[in-house]
Amino acid sequence: MSLEPTFPERRVLLRCALSFVGKSSRLIRSKLAAGPRVRLKDDGSPVTDADLAAERLLRRLIVRRFPDHGIQGEEFPPVRPRAEFQWFVDPIDGTMSFTREIPLFGTIVALHHLGRPLLGVIDHPALQETTSAAAGLGAFRNGRRITVSSGNALKNELVAVCYRDQFLRCRRQAAFDRLMRSHPNVRTYGDCFGHILAARGAVGAMVDVDINPWDLAATQVIIEEAGGKYVVLARRGKRRDILFGKPKVVDRLLPILK
Amino acid sequence: MSLEPTFPERRVLLRCALSFVGKSSRLIRSKLAAGPRVRLKDDGSPVTDADLAAERLLRRLIVRRFPDHGIQGEEFPPVRPRAEFQWFVDPIDGTMSFTREIPLFGTIVALHHLGRPLLGVIDHPALQETTSAAAGLGAFRNGRRITVSSGNALKNELVAVCYRDQFLRCRRQAAFDRLMRSHPNVRTYGDCFGHILAARGAVGAMVDVDINPWDLAATQVIIEEAGGKYVVLARRGKRRDILFGKPKVVDRLLPILK
Repeated sequence: MSLEPTFPERRVLLRCALSFVGKSSRLIRSKLAAGPRVRLKDDGSPVTDADLAAERLLRRLIVRRFPDHGIQGEEFPPVRPRAEFQWFVDPIDGTMSFTREIPLFGTIVALHHLGRPLLGVIDHPALQETTSAAAGLGAFRNGRRITVSSGNALKNELVAVCYRDQFLRCRRQAAFDRLMRSHPNVRTYGDCFGHILAARGAVGAMVDVDINPWDLAATQVIIEEAGGKYVVLARRGKRRDILFGKPKVVDRLLPILK
Repeated sequence: MSLEPTFPERRVLLRCALSFVGKSSRLIRSKLAAGPRVRLKDDGSPVTDADLAAERLLRRLIVRRFPDHGIQGEEFPPVRPRAEFQWFVDPIDGTMSFTREIPLFGTIVALHHLGRPLLGVIDHPALQETTSAAAGLGAFRNGRRITVSSGNALKNELVAVCYRDQFLRCRRQAAFDRLMRSHPNVRTYGDCFGHILAARGAVGAMVDVDINPWDLAATQVIIEEAGGKYVVLARRGKRRDILFGKPKVVDRLLPILK
């Protein structure tokens, strides 16, 4: 088919995605309890046996249920890259946190149809917090509806930002320093932990730069279904700089980051 | 008595502190589940019904068990400030996080004897992680021994720092900016969350500035019992700037922060 999935079809797809992530979440918690085993990849970035095992599990679950869909992820080559349905998986976003038992790492699973985000799930195994959305069906945290204004009445809006080394990598450190100086409450809630905080209004907005397709694949649909604004600030190959959150906060931050 | 408590006496005192904190932890989790209720204090800082209820509970438990000890805390006046044993309590360190349901807030309980730290407990109710130490008896995370070198083999040492607005408050923002620029992996793991990460070696060191007596009362004994180095960078009235963690990392950061 090349028609967009109907709402009932999306509900089924989201239920499947949540079930896949529920299984990877249990696997990751058990790996965490056993103590993470780390090695460095050729590019110097760390990978753990939990990354590999969880991505293998997610790919197996997807292929078994949706044999004609494509899959893209960090640790293994793409599967059926021309299929109209493409899954994106990042088993452990925030490997540096995971290896240090800092419980802010998360799992990202998303499904795009003909290049458009259809659904997204961001799961935080150690926090037992699952954020999800499907286009047209709203955004949810552990099954309860969320919006970017859930924390609207709060004074002293927080802003989340990824780590300075990501800005350094793409030579945008001046923007990081400007942001830090221009807003009193900027916090480095990096990786997909910041993404879910923006979706439920715990922070007013987040800036995340130089990130891979699988690390942003779930975010746009979650933010937009939560009533937020999602802006691509820059593209470098497949990498993106993004800004998202409450529309007013996003608009206020745009000139600082451009 | 004015003799230092013996090791068996310290064990009893620590067991009491852990039991008090276990009770406040359950109370705080139930308040979190019910949704935090926030109001602003006269100085503009937020306070919640959970802050007040948990501090009242902790004070009641301490007074009942140790009627001749003193107590100091954020929300109520000091009790018996000249007693040789002084308890310090902060029921919710990280109220901004608590009100946003960001699970990184913690409870601090410490006991000092004649001005010297005897024991410290830092509990993270939402993470169900309790860090504790008593002088001469070691440091523990959920009952298991920790050291600042628990994560020693890790490449890419992380450094934790409190929020920039704390540096602004005491006009030390230049030190914050210098630290951010001088080290690629600085993260704002603020409040007592950063303290426990340093104690178990998840970060190499932490800098925390302009903090109250009750917010640092548990940290020195925990860090030192974990084999770490604890340095007071500056004193302003009862407020302190502190730096602590792995001795080598502390020494490397000292010139940046002085």
